[in-house]
Amino acid sequence: MRATQTKPTVSETIWQHHHVLDLDDFTREEIELVFQTTKAMKEILSRPIKQVPALRGKTLITLFYEPSTRTRLSFELAAKYLSADMVNLNTQISSVAKGESLVDTLGTLQALGADIVIMRHPSSGAPSIATRFIGASIVNAGDGWHAHPTQALLDLYTIHEHKQSLKGLKAVIIGDIMHSRVARSNIWGLTTMGIGVTLCSPPTLLPIGLGDQRLPPVRTEPDIERALDGADIVMTLRLQRERQRSGLLPSIREYINLYQLNKSRLAKAKPDALVLHPGPVNEGIEISPAVAHGAQSVINEQVTNGVAVRMALLYLITGSQKQ
Amino acid sequence: MRATQTKPTVSETIWQHHHVLDLDDFTREEIELVFQTTKAMKEILSRPIKQVPALRGKTLITLFYEPSTRTRLSFELAAKYLSADMVNLNTQISSVAKGESLVDTLGTLQALGADIVIMRHPSSGAPSIATRFIGASIVNAGDGWHAHPTQALLDLYTIHEHKQSLKGLKAVIIGDIMHSRVARSNIWGLTTMGIGVTLCSPPTLLPIGLGDQRLPPVRTEPDIERALDGADIVMTLRLQRERQRSGLLPSIREYINLYQLNKSRLAKAKPDALVLHPGPVNEGIEISPAVAHGAQSVINEQVTNGVAVRMALLYLITGSQKQ
Amino acid sequence: MRATQTKPTVSETIWQHHHVLDLDDFTREEIELVFQTTKAMKEILSRPIKQVPALRGKTLITLFYEPSTRTRLSFELAAKYLSADMVNLNTQISSVAKGESLVDTLGTLQALGADIVIMRHPSSGAPSIATRFIGASIVNAGDGWHAHPTQALLDLYTIHEHKQSLKGLKAVIIGDIMHSRVARSNIWGLTTMGIGVTLCSPPTLLPIGLGDQRLPPVRTEPDIERALDGADIVMTLRLQRERQRSGLLPSIREYINLYQLNKSRLAKAKPDALVLHPGPVNEGIEISPAVAHGAQSVINEQVTNGVAVRMALLYLITGSQKQ
Repeated sequence: MRATQTKPTVSETIWQHHHVLDLDDFTREEIELVFQTTKAMKEILSRPIKQVPALRGKTLITLFYEPSTRTRLSFELAAKYLSADMVNLNTQISSVAKGESLVDTLGTLQALGADIVIMRHPSSGAPSIATRFIGASIVNAGDGWHAHPTQALLDLYTIHEHKQSLKGLKAVIIGDIMHSRVARSNIWGLTTMGIGVTLCSPPTLLPIGLGDQRLPPVRTEPDIERALDGADIVMTLRLQRERQRSGLLPSIREYINLYQLNKSRLAKAKPDALVLHPGPVNEGIEISPAVAHGAQSVINEQVTNGVAVRMALLYLITGSQKQ
Repeated sequence: MRATQTKPTVSETIWQHHHVLDLDDFTREEIELVFQTTKAMKEILSRPIKQVPALRGKTLITLFYEPSTRTRLSFELAAKYLSADMVNLNTQISSVAKGESLVDTLGTLQALGADIVIMRHPSSGAPSIATRFIGASIVNAGDGWHAHPTQALLDLYTIHEHKQSLKGLKAVIIGDIMHSRVARSNIWGLTTMGIGVTLCSPPTLLPIGLGDQRLPPVRTEPDIERALDGADIVMTLRLQRERQRSGLLPSIREYINLYQLNKSRLAKAKPDALVLHPGPVNEGIEISPAVAHGAQSVINEQVTNGVAVRMALLYLITGSQKQ
Repeated sequence: MRATQTKPTVSETIWQHHHVLDLDDFTREEIELVFQTTKAMKEILSRPIKQVPALRGKTLITLFYEPSTRTRLSFELAAKYLSADMVNLNTQISSVAKGESLVDTLGTLQALGADIVIMRHPSSGAPSIATRFIGASIVNAGDGWHAHPTQALLDLYTIHEHKQSLKGLKAVIIGDIMHSRVARSNIWGLTTMGIGVTLCSPPTLLPIGLGDQRLPPVRTEPDIERALDGADIVMTLRLQRERQRSGLLPSIREYINLYQLNKSRLAKAKPDALVLHPGPVNEGIEISPAVAHGAQSVINEQVTNGVAVRMALLYLITGSQKQ
């Protein structure tokens, strides 16, 4: 803030996040601020020259311990559109692969001048631990089965674009909830916005002891047609084929029979229900091609909104660093 | 175009390509427009600050399903000199490697806001198929044995810089024509510019049924000295050592004996004949070191011109998108 | 220089390096110029927008034949802060991996328009050989056991920031000197600045025939406590665990017993002695955690200064290219 400013702006009052680790500590006001900021970013993206100098001279480093296409590219484009300096540390082709500890790597990134580190890690909680060893902001781009807050925020924003009001809507999350960081972050985000959440999953793929995990209250309904009844929002999750090998699923064929989102099942939901998927889609497994590409699908909008939501988050975080 | 413009510019009238897939659909006028634009780009490259804002705010994504050094770097530099935002999707270190389909990946790139996708793929025709699933412009950076149009355009431009007129010149392409996308695109480009083409190759490495492939008429001449007789342009092709293992060549030694471009053979061509090679060169195999580094070689000029040709193409494609 | 300038500036008189290969040919005046320029770069890095247009339109290419985290990122950030166009050629994921020769690759980089090539190679002397095949400036980012001049310069700058005068100081380098390019470049840099150097190492990890290697005169002292006595600067080196397998070390445990820098040993040095390490640190092996993170450690400052030193070098090299 400049010295001449005597009172903080609205966004400075609302926004409290130096890091973005999950949505469990986001208030409704903060999520609404993300919506407003994302809308402004989408306006920038619609211009012939989709670039603003908002993050000029800021240093963003991506630190990805797992391969990723869409999330990394989405962050990378968001950073470029905001004119940040971005470098990538891909652990698969760096000396990090040779056993340098996470703490040492973070120390190096800090000393190199990182302002924001965008981190993906196979271990749940790694980004949270990372905040103890670095002054830069950490943005969690997915950690183990734990959280994927930017995915959940882009899901929420996509819903927000289609629905007058979020409060009182009914969302169903279908699939492998147990292993899904997308589901966990969405449970936080959806309930914070006043949306009721139903989980629909084979019992073997439902998190054990849901209440013990300090997740907000949700309903579970193993029958997909009952779960979808009257739903406003239908989220399908990618089914990893490895689940079958690990004995959690009798067969992919049975999963399709019982849990694939197809046209007849989707008809149980409200006529204007939205279909979301975090991608990449296994067409014909968790979702039928007709539904994935149907009129109710907002899967491509999710990807587009992802860039704008990440621009908004990078912008808001940078604003908080100035204070 | 701005509303106040009442008639299109010359380049807007001539240039019809939203995509660049091969040279089979390029007219002589379009190739000459590429020459003019490339010349302007070379002037930019000669400045102390070799950068213009022509593509500022445009999003270029490289999608390479095969490793590449010079082609990817050449496009990447071209994009930077034009101030585009460029990100790389290298399938060897991304989740694409884990079986995401080409169609899904393209959908993601589109939703991410790609304006131009620069694509290399091991399957002939993949970039052409890609155009059906993406609104962004596709630039083919090499597909299977099929086409490599930017290489052929940089070859043509390099010839154009050295020769007063292209019409009526005689070109010889020597080597493994069958597996060469460079040769195929050059056959289209050279004949479109009125250059006569002779293919010189072991019969096992000549495309089967040349006429059936809808290629323009070319002469074949297995004897290298007869083929080179009076030539203005000599193109040598990289010999993949795998060809011997697959039984298409009796031995590398015999190939060298019969088809290596060396000084005595080059003497059969015109004294001012140009020697081209798409690189990387196998010195001592398809070309002798003395010829590769000799006075008639324009191999390094090809690389330099490659950056300018790609700048020209990116510029022309972007112009066509505005219409 | 512009034609109107009648006399060269101080820096143009002092700076003679088109390439930076090692510190064996750096004068004290040149190193002091690097210090001054680095200080100016650190001022830039302290600004809210840490970016200047000094290298706009210049093409930097990194050519890394070995994996690296901190050195590559450090150069990449230095290039971005100076607004250079930078592309990376990582040989592990390019066709270079498929056997293209170094000479061919350099020819390509030259033809692509490289102004500066930043090169890491497992073979000692490779960057020096490279200068014969490319007009661009070569900056050695580490070659075999031979040299790592930018690391030595950042070490020297870090010492310079802490000490009034370098002349007459006493430095001790502890560890695997034989395999350390960092040690070799530091021996040149430290002695040029008038700092006395003592090497402390198991006899099997000391370079054979120190005098024969044309290194400047240094003292060797295998006993760590005697070596540290009265030292102003303590440099520890990473111990590669492979050394044990190759029979050069009886055991890691014995190495720790005899050569680990711990608190009681560090007490032999002067109270204001600095502890340096080129990273990544093997905590508990060559250095105890308490010393690595202690008040005398400047390990993180080294990383921070590395960006500024590399900015200074890129800036000075670019200046020399204009002449």
